[in-house]
Amino acid sequence: MARILYDLYGRDEQLRFSPYCWRVRMALAHKGLDVELKPWRFQQKDAIAFANTDKVPVLCDGDQVVADSFSIMGYLDDAYPDTPSVLGSGASYQRALLFSHYVDRQVSPALLRIVALDLLTAIHPDDRDYFRATREARFGCTLEEFHSPEQGQTSLHKALAPVRAVLRTSPFLDGETPGGADYLLFGSIMWANVVSRQAPVIEEAVIDDWFRRLCGFYDGMGNHALTVRDLVEKQGV
Amino acid sequence: MARILYDLYGRDEQLRFSPYCWRVRMALAHKGLDVELKPWRFQQKDAIAFANTDKVPVLCDGDQVVADSFSIMGYLDDAYPDTPSVLGSGASYQRALLFSHYVDRQVSPALLRIVALDLLTAIHPDDRDYFRATREARFGCTLEEFHSPEQGQTSLHKALAPVRAVLRTSPFLDGETPGGADYLLFGSIMWANVVSRQAPVIEEAVIDDWFRRLCGFYDGMGNHALTVRDLVEKQGV
Repeated sequence: MARILYDLYGRDEQLRFSPYCWRVRMALAHKGLDVELKPWRFQQKDAIAFANTDKVPVLCDGDQVVADSFSIMGYLDDAYPDTPSVLGSGASYQRALLFSHYVDRQVSPALLRIVALDLLTAIHPDDRDYFRATREARFGCTLEEFHSPEQGQTSLHKALAPVRAVLRTSPFLDGETPGGADYLLFGSIMWANVVSRQAPVIEEAVIDDWFRRLCGFYDGMGNHALTVRDLVEKQGV
Repeated sequence: MARILYDLYGRDEQLRFSPYCWRVRMALAHKGLDVELKPWRFQQKDAIAFANTDKVPVLCDGDQVVADSFSIMGYLDDAYPDTPSVLGSGASYQRALLFSHYVDRQVSPALLRIVALDLLTAIHPDDRDYFRATREARFGCTLEEFHSPEQGQTSLHKALAPVRAVLRTSPFLDGETPGGADYLLFGSIMWANVVSRQAPVIEEAVIDDWFRRLCGFYDGMGNHALTVRDLVEKQGV
């Protein structure tokens, strides 16, 4: 049976920006595992109900169904023990978990302030009302009020301090070659990078260099990703 | 030859509050390695000049001399490969390094705002002018202006979000038993705990419980540590 990953798309079916799906795509590539990406939109809850979730990524691997990006990364380590590990086990796994919470709670919220309105226009038109309603309820303000690139950059700079410090002494967060910690952060930066109308989102050379290096991995998967800027160029909107 | 750790002391020779020395003490205990603590004060630079540093911890292990807490933890893993690992190697080591930068840049500064003035009075009287001058130059304001427990608690709560999330699913940051990531954070909280005139510094049960559990490890080393509150009780000041 095929390996299938449900992957969020936006205003163009090739516009793929979910940070969590990007994590999993990098993890699969790290292990040399092929996958078929199944395009999915925010409100297509029925299509993934079989996985007992309403969010992507959802991985179907033969008869195994796994939801949640961190769970999928752990599943891949367990199911394919002969491939290079992504999260590792024991303390290594725990430290990756700690870092994933850090990315979700400190890095992604800062990025969201930078690209909130860009993200809205990157989303499929049929999903925009849904996105606005759910996010405005969560933030307690309008997307327009939440959108604050300058404040976001200040928070981002502070949040990335530990990352900056590590990248001064090694080319990747996980060392000489990229690993799970790199993919956890890469997903969030890729998300902002795909939807941003004004790249680059990352203003610091040491982190931007790391991001560009990762974009070149796995046949340049990140470099080949369609961005909102490509669409603007092609379609003029 | 003996194993000796230079360890910062304050207004009482038994008052030991350096976060970096606490990390190393926990790492040594984790490995079952004895150590003789050599009391040291901020301005006794000459006493540790042989280690090419002006800060503790400095470990003398036979003819090996190692400075910097993270380097010492790594040295102990290398020098005693048959003892339980503290930092690990490869991605595990890198993720511990990332976490140590996070603790130093986000957690410790928040704790310092909570205990800045308590710390000043915990320091040996002969060191207070030195401490005030160096810290005020670093912060760009007086210690009295920097001291802001309420603001510190707000920053601390935010900084500890990833820690809180992990401790909801495992008893220690590194999993079922404590490891390097636990000791990195423990050192900073112990530092604030020793000097705080108003314990507990940690207001959240899930993190305070973890801290208390760690204080009970290794013959209750953390529980037996002299605090400023003990001194106030004994000496009334």
